Amino acid sequence: MPPLFHGTAYYPELWPEADIDHDIAEMTRLGINVVRMGEFAWSTMEPNDGEISLAFFERVIDRLHAAGIRTIFCTPTPTPPIWLTHDHPERLHVDVDGRRMIHGSRQHACTNNPDFRRYARRIVEAIARTLGRHPALVAWQTDNEFKCHVAECYCASCRTQWHEWLATRYGTIDQLNELWGTRIWSQSYQRFDQVPPPARTAFLHNASLLTAYRLFTHTKLAEFQAEQLAIIRQHTSAPITHNSEPGFHLDNELLFRDLDFASFDHYPSASDYRRMLFRFDLFRNATRSRRFWVMETSPSHNGCLTEVTQSAHPSAFVGALAASAYAQGAEGFSYWLWRQQRTGCELPHGSILSAWHRPATGYRAAETVDRVRRALEPLLVGRTLRAPAAALTYSDRARHMWSVEPLMSGLERVDGFDYLERVAEWHDLLRANRCPRDLCLPGAPLDSYRLLVTPFVPHLPADFVTRVTQWVKRGGTWIVGPMTNWRTEEHTVNTDAGLGWLESFAGIETTSISPLWKTGTEGDAFGLRAPLRSWGAFFRPTTAKAIGEVVAGDLLGEAFIAEQPHGQGRVVLLGAMPDGAEGRAMLDRLIQHYATAANITFDDETSADVVTSTWLRRDDELQIVVNLGAAPGSITLSRPAIDATTGEPVATGRLELPAHHWRALLHA
Amino acid sequence: MPPLFHGTAYYPELWPEADIDHDIAEMTRLGINVVRMGEFAWSTMEPNDGEISLAFFERVIDRLHAAGIRTIFCTPTPTPPIWLTHDHPERLHVDVDGRRMIHGSRQHACTNNPDFRRYARRIVEAIARTLGRHPALVAWQTDNEFKCHVAECYCASCRTQWHEWLATRYGTIDQLNELWGTRIWSQSYQRFDQVPPPARTAFLHNASLLTAYRLFTHTKLAEFQAEQLAIIRQHTSAPITHNSEPGFHLDNELLFRDLDFASFDHYPSASDYRRMLFRFDLFRNATRSRRFWVMETSPSHNGCLTEVTQSAHPSAFVGALAASAYAQGAEGFSYWLWRQQRTGCELPHGSILSAWHRPATGYRAAETVDRVRRALEPLLVGRTLRAPAAALTYSDRARHMWSVEPLMSGLERVDGFDYLERVAEWHDLLRANRCPRDLCLPGAPLDSYRLLVTPFVPHLPADFVTRVTQWVKRGGTWIVGPMTNWRTEEHTVNTDAGLGWLESFAGIETTSISPLWKTGTEGDAFGLRAPLRSWGAFFRPTTAKAIGEVVAGDLLGEAFIAEQPHGQGRVVLLGAMPDGAEGRAMLDRLIQHYATAANITFDDETSADVVTSTWLRRDDELQIVVNLGAAPGSITLSRPAIDATTGEPVATGRLELPAHHWRALLHA
Amino acid sequence: MPPLFHGTAYYPELWPEADIDHDIAEMTRLGINVVRMGEFAWSTMEPNDGEISLAFFERVIDRLHAAGIRTIFCTPTPTPPIWLTHDHPERLHVDVDGRRMIHGSRQHACTNNPDFRRYARRIVEAIARTLGRHPALVAWQTDNEFKCHVAECYCASCRTQWHEWLATRYGTIDQLNELWGTRIWSQSYQRFDQVPPPARTAFLHNASLLTAYRLFTHTKLAEFQAEQLAIIRQHTSAPITHNSEPGFHLDNELLFRDLDFASFDHYPSASDYRRMLFRFDLFRNATRSRRFWVMETSPSHNGCLTEVTQSAHPSAFVGALAASAYAQGAEGFSYWLWRQQRTGCELPHGSILSAWHRPATGYRAAETVDRVRRALEPLLVGRTLRAPAAALTYSDRARHMWSVEPLMSGLERVDGFDYLERVAEWHDLLRANRCPRDLCLPGAPLDSYRLLVTPFVPHLPADFVTRVTQWVKRGGTWIVGPMTNWRTEEHTVNTDAGLGWLESFAGIETTSISPLWKTGTEGDAFGLRAPLRSWGAFFRPTTAKAIGEVVAGDLLGEAFIAEQPHGQGRVVLLGAMPDGAEGRAMLDRLIQHYATAANITFDDETSADVVTSTWLRRDDELQIVVNLGAAPGSITLSRPAIDATTGEPVATGRLELPAHHWRALLHA
Repeated sequence: MPPLFHGTAYYPELWPEADIDHDIAEMTRLGINVVRMGEFAWSTMEPNDGEISLAFFERVIDRLHAAGIRTIFCTPTPTPPIWLTHDHPERLHVDVDGRRMIHGSRQHACTNNPDFRRYARRIVEAIARTLGRHPALVAWQTDNEFKCHVAECYCASCRTQWHEWLATRYGTIDQLNELWGTRIWSQSYQRFDQVPPPARTAFLHNASLLTAYRLFTHTKLAEFQAEQLAIIRQHTSAPITHNSEPGFHLDNELLFRDLDFASFDHYPSASDYRRMLFRFDLFRNATRSRRFWVMETSPSHNGCLTEVTQSAHPSAFVGALAASAYAQGAEGFSYWLWRQQRTGCELPHGSILSAWHRPATGYRAAETVDRVRRALEPLLVGRTLRAPAAALTYSDRARHMWSVEPLMSGLERVDGFDYLERVAEWHDLLRANRCPRDLCLPGAPLDSYRLLVTPFVPHLPADFVTRVTQWVKRGGTWIVGPMTNWRTEEHTVNTDAGLGWLESFAGIETTSISPLWKTGTEGDAFGLRAPLRSWGAFFRPTTAKAIGEVVAGDLLGEAFIAEQPHGQGRVVLLGAMPDGAEGRAMLDRLIQHYATAANITFDDETSADVVTSTWLRRDDELQIVVNLGAAPGSITLSRPAIDATTGEPVATGRLELPAHHWRALLHA
Repeated sequence: MPPLFHGTAYYPELWPEADIDHDIAEMTRLGINVVRMGEFAWSTMEPNDGEISLAFFERVIDRLHAAGIRTIFCTPTPTPPIWLTHDHPERLHVDVDGRRMIHGSRQHACTNNPDFRRYARRIVEAIARTLGRHPALVAWQTDNEFKCHVAECYCASCRTQWHEWLATRYGTIDQLNELWGTRIWSQSYQRFDQVPPPARTAFLHNASLLTAYRLFTHTKLAEFQAEQLAIIRQHTSAPITHNSEPGFHLDNELLFRDLDFASFDHYPSASDYRRMLFRFDLFRNATRSRRFWVMETSPSHNGCLTEVTQSAHPSAFVGALAASAYAQGAEGFSYWLWRQQRTGCELPHGSILSAWHRPATGYRAAETVDRVRRALEPLLVGRTLRAPAAALTYSDRARHMWSVEPLMSGLERVDGFDYLERVAEWHDLLRANRCPRDLCLPGAPLDSYRLLVTPFVPHLPADFVTRVTQWVKRGGTWIVGPMTNWRTEEHTVNTDAGLGWLESFAGIETTSISPLWKTGTEGDAFGLRAPLRSWGAFFRPTTAKAIGEVVAGDLLGEAFIAEQPHGQGRVVLLGAMPDGAEGRAMLDRLIQHYATAANITFDDETSADVVTSTWLRRDDELQIVVNLGAAPGSITLSRPAIDATTGEPVATGRLELPAHHWRALLHA
Repeated sequence: MPPLFHGTAYYPELWPEADIDHDIAEMTRLGINVVRMGEFAWSTMEPNDGEISLAFFERVIDRLHAAGIRTIFCTPTPTPPIWLTHDHPERLHVDVDGRRMIHGSRQHACTNNPDFRRYARRIVEAIARTLGRHPALVAWQTDNEFKCHVAECYCASCRTQWHEWLATRYGTIDQLNELWGTRIWSQSYQRFDQVPPPARTAFLHNASLLTAYRLFTHTKLAEFQAEQLAIIRQHTSAPITHNSEPGFHLDNELLFRDLDFASFDHYPSASDYRRMLFRFDLFRNATRSRRFWVMETSPSHNGCLTEVTQSAHPSAFVGALAASAYAQGAEGFSYWLWRQQRTGCELPHGSILSAWHRPATGYRAAETVDRVRRALEPLLVGRTLRAPAAALTYSDRARHMWSVEPLMSGLERVDGFDYLERVAEWHDLLRANRCPRDLCLPGAPLDSYRLLVTPFVPHLPADFVTRVTQWVKRGGTWIVGPMTNWRTEEHTVNTDAGLGWLESFAGIETTSISPLWKTGTEGDAFGLRAPLRSWGAFFRPTTAKAIGEVVAGDLLGEAFIAEQPHGQGRVVLLGAMPDGAEGRAMLDRLIQHYATAANITFDDETSADVVTSTWLRRDDELQIVVNLGAAPGSITLSRPAIDATTGEPVATGRLELPAHHWRALLHA
């Protein structure tokens, strides 16, 4: 376990160099021990084509280092200089409506344009060569928030590479035509170069085409990053990350496969910290190292010219947030940003210092976090976060299939299926049922888990299937569904069975898959009755045991939950989501039942806003309890403990925590 | 009367040919006696430019025919193959924002492009020549849902033809300038080639220009269809239809003038069956033959990638819907679709068989409809649906004038004037007042009616005027207005009188035409008082008798309903719509009063969801009563009857019908 | 004081010339004594390139003049003829999305295109030369509602001139880079020709760029008008105006600086007359002459093809509106429009005569206004409206900075900061607190005021600062803030202090500037406690006295209102807006307190819908009281008076006014 980092994004290139001394003094006062720099500074590093100098940043890094502050350095590829794109419209991103971006924001260049790639490699090479062995260097960050502003590109470079990518993936146009079923609507292609990037047209495109174009885009983005990684690794031993989010137009699994540790940027309001807990559990598992950082979060509020979406934080909340981040395994907790922007489009964003170089709204928050970090560091160093035995599948490919087919729109909701929100509901369910949990990507190893929940994955990839079925047979308990594996890899409908191979594995035969809105469909399971919502698959058990059955509506008597044992384990197929308060109760029973069956050790019971985690050392257990709420909370301790800070004994039973407070408790 | 058809859309070209046997077996089991094929299969028929083969479809038609299943064959023009548009952007549709469509959906080609027209004629010719005399052929369908996805096109072909069309229509540019009043805003044109297709610009275009461009588009679409009809008729004696809707961007009157029978595609939810009744009454009158089909409706739910707008039907509802269709004169009741799509963008759509070739959610509905059809067919064959004596005018040209001038937006509603919805309100009014009714297009003959209601037609065409005035003089009762004939054919304001010629015919002089929102205007008529809504014309009777007068607001004392006798008949001018519950009561009295005056035979009284129709034979009357509701309903029989199925007597008075049930009653 | 005008927009070019006699007869009957003509008639004046004739308009002006009706003549530049733009797409306006306008609406040409400018100068020259000395000519109007439909243009002409304008404004590209801080996001430019007009791109542009492009646009528009003014003034002594609005995409201060008197077009509903009062107080001060007209308002309702946003007026309301206009100093009250449009896109708009040349809905309103004008004219001639001693700053540059940075969106409102609405709230506050008031542009002289309120101006311009600080020292009371002077002229953040120079002048130091939504921040002042809303600046007094302090939330103890004396005057800095009913009470106390301190003479107390103004003559005061409400209202007279119309005495105390009535009261 390395020491804990308390960091900030820092843009010294935007200010008089003389201001750095005051910055360093204030950072030192606040216990800031790392800064992240460089991600937008391409024009500072290379003001004219080929005139590259890192001298300014070397000076800054040196001065920070002399004060004990280390650096994460970024590649500046999200913001190419004007000379790279001026008079070169062909290097610019084109959106789904055919609109070509222009200089002056971010992500306006196409990352697939060969010229852009060449210039990007050159600047990355120069940076890596110059800074790669600097002793202050903690880590690298590629680019910045890839694809946060733009999605698929429709430029000529992309079109050409799309056709090459298709040829590689499908071999022959006949194979593509067959897999995508292009006879429909006379889509049939004669040659790969006829397959259009699916820009807007009169109505919808083929789902296979839409999904393939997303996959192409995500694959090429990972390729763009891989070019940078290969260069950087020639010159450095520092680890490399990227600051991502599950909402961006990319596939985090493809991106993080090549990275050394994970990080993310998230800006919750104090009332919405649950989204942050989701990300702790997700990014902890995004790389094999299980290392992760909160790379950006606001010390106060966020904001750009057009809107503020986050209310100014009470400073105590930021302290609690940092405590929960470190307690969930974050190595770093870093702000955006150090000093309020003087210019640009993020003038209103909260910061630690104001543009006029005085303490701003975030200053007190940073003071609070400094105290948290100093208190936690000696407790966590030498201990290891206990790995959870339950996991919830999170898949960006699933998310993108839902973006192609957001079919819940219409009768009750207009916004379509929000995969991220729906998985977050399951995450909350597991937390409320006191299951220590990971969110795990489809490619992650399953060996350390005893319970896995996999909802809303339209297609389960072959490699995952191989591993999960073996894992079940070795004793795993797998709750799968609803709306899972009803599509093929090419985003078509299964033709062997409604849920494909999953039917025989789950011991059922699907009798119908249909929307449930306004049909009055209700189910009964675990002694409770609840309406079933959105879409459902209903089935007839062949070898499985029906656990839940329809008790109202046209589907009367069909099963919607079934359990099938396999070896030491079992698969539990969930056909439809129970809805409302009764549905929630049914899901609680389902989780309690199978978590118990899977021999999960439950967390201590807490009030709603309190989170807990356990750190292990050979001879003891350290329990960290954080109240993220604005009101007093509590935990009901199952064992007596000693307060790790004060040495005072803490009795079994209810322990109160004031708003935004935390405690570290030692158990022998 | 031909036998009743029970049909389905069928896409054998999308599946292994071997699957056809199973399809035929299931169709036979479900009493499916007709399929519709071919409408999207151009690339199957002509995979490369000029390589045309219908052999596959000939085999399919033969095999179906051998099993007693007949075929409706379509021209495949909504989905041109890739070779037709690839590298030919000039053949593609361009929308009002200048966006050019691309290959991969439907309706992406411009139907006015001369190359496209030439290719279309060639494939239609090949199909007609090959299949035109096949004994299985029941009918032809042109294209599919013309202009359901796209509206006016702004491509270069359209621009050129628009200028030619204008020259033909107006003769000289001076004439156009005068009729459109183009001195306004210095629009004046010097030559026809300067008149722009009205793509988006800084603010609104001249109403005359907007309306003329719609008329041009609709006329050219009918011309495109006429090219197909001329070719098909050289090779066949089977009748030709098109599957339309009143919501598409076309003029159904222009389209159906050339067709042999009518059909439509409609997907109501069970709670919204009224829209279906509207279409029965409309499409029955769309062609001279009075023949019509429900060409597409879902056996369960609808759905595409982005949304589902229809809840899954209880199967009994589909049975009731089919019963009401046949009872209202439909010759065919046909589903979309037979087997769930494996690929494309309609994967979620309900079907009879699933993609994996098993009974799907619609299967039980089809079984129910089979029973309905078998029971009804012997009753209806040899009988004739009694023609209604009341009619309600429906005009697509009116609808399009409202799309140009949706002026109700603003103070109370933001969505503008929904002509279809507003006429549907009148349709419901007539039904609730037990008037057997047609919806009739402006060009339809009026001779068989005694009562005609014509609301919301901004301009009454000259031919209609000639006929309606003669019909009134011969004894017709014509309720006309509100918002009717206040515009000229060229979408300008009358300069002789507010309502033009209608004023002298109705015996009044208009004193004001103005919006009524928030003005507190109320009217009194038939002993009731009600607020008046939206826009009104108010008048001073010259020779007419005032029937309703304003009793509150600035227009105090003006008339808003007036009656003027003509020969044996009368015209009743309605200046404004009474609103709310009081307004509804006033309209009920108006209808009852004039329907009685017009000697209309009222239907038996029913509960809200029950519909009734009467079929005549020389010696008896058959009354078919259908409960479309999900709750029990009833009819109050005015005469004793005998149940046509069981032979049991049925007494006068209240007869209960369970949810979704129907009865056939014989009266001597 | 000239006589009072009662006018109408008139389009004789759209009708048979023979109709003019009837028009004149009706105008005479209604007391219409002026018409406005010509603003859209370019194609009538110049049907072909260079064939210019004003003969028609000369005839019309003569005939009107003979009947005692005078003319305001307009330049017709909003609607260039077809020959000017056909085959010349480069002369057309291009919007932010790159969409090029087309012929057929208004404002479709780019007013910066050199060809367009040349043609515009030629037609203006011809008009001015021909009509400039006509005795009927009351005034000129440039163009019509500049930039009501379009905002910034992105055509090639604009791009070129933008680069020239930048070079002139900034001198060197280094200076621009420094002022705009373009190192951010690697925006740095090497040459002026690289600075893009800020069309849409992936995310937001630099605020400095966005604000500069608006300023460029507004400056060039004033230049376009100035070209017209220079030409007109060579041929005429009649004054020149433009019919503007505070909502258009322009800077009224730049526009009216060059004009002789002000006018505006406004269409309130009867329930929304407050917006009209706002405009009286604003446009009265838009030019040095303090002369203004209501150039357009509807006699009934407004409307275009797509919507009606105004309910039909009771005619008595229009009379009261005209009375209040004249009473607040308007020289003219003019309708849009005389006769309903026969063609075009404004067919539904209310008018005085109908298209069929009969009295329409607005006729009775015009009769009423005629009576008002005849009664008021003898009272007002020879008297002068008493100038108010309180003023509220209104700045279009502030409005445009808020359009660039509408940062209130997000947590509570989605529509962003509506500067106009927020200043209107302050205007209502001053009116409710009975302060006679002007709205004054930043460049207006301050000498006549004793109280000035300046909220929501992100940057106070240098000239204003010089004048306001001197004015304060000479005795002025200046309430400034909130959200004022927190940005620089180049739309960047101050780096000396949060509020720049204002801090030392106000005797405070800002400690934080942050959003307040959902933070629970409350303030105490004047013995009241209220929540504080949106954004606030909080401070620590250095030499000032804290008047209001935060009493709840993280900012506890900080000041949000402070008062600092300067010479005979004082500055009162308001850091945040008190919210809700308590906040309203606090603001009332603030205004009462400082208005009293500033020795403001309060208006007599009135009920909510009653407005009062005072006209002075050497020997008496005339008080005009108008009830704009639909219910009875009252004023509480502080002095006895004599009714100026009847000569009857009127006692001190409560005087009732029926709905829409007015009284003229003489005080000795």
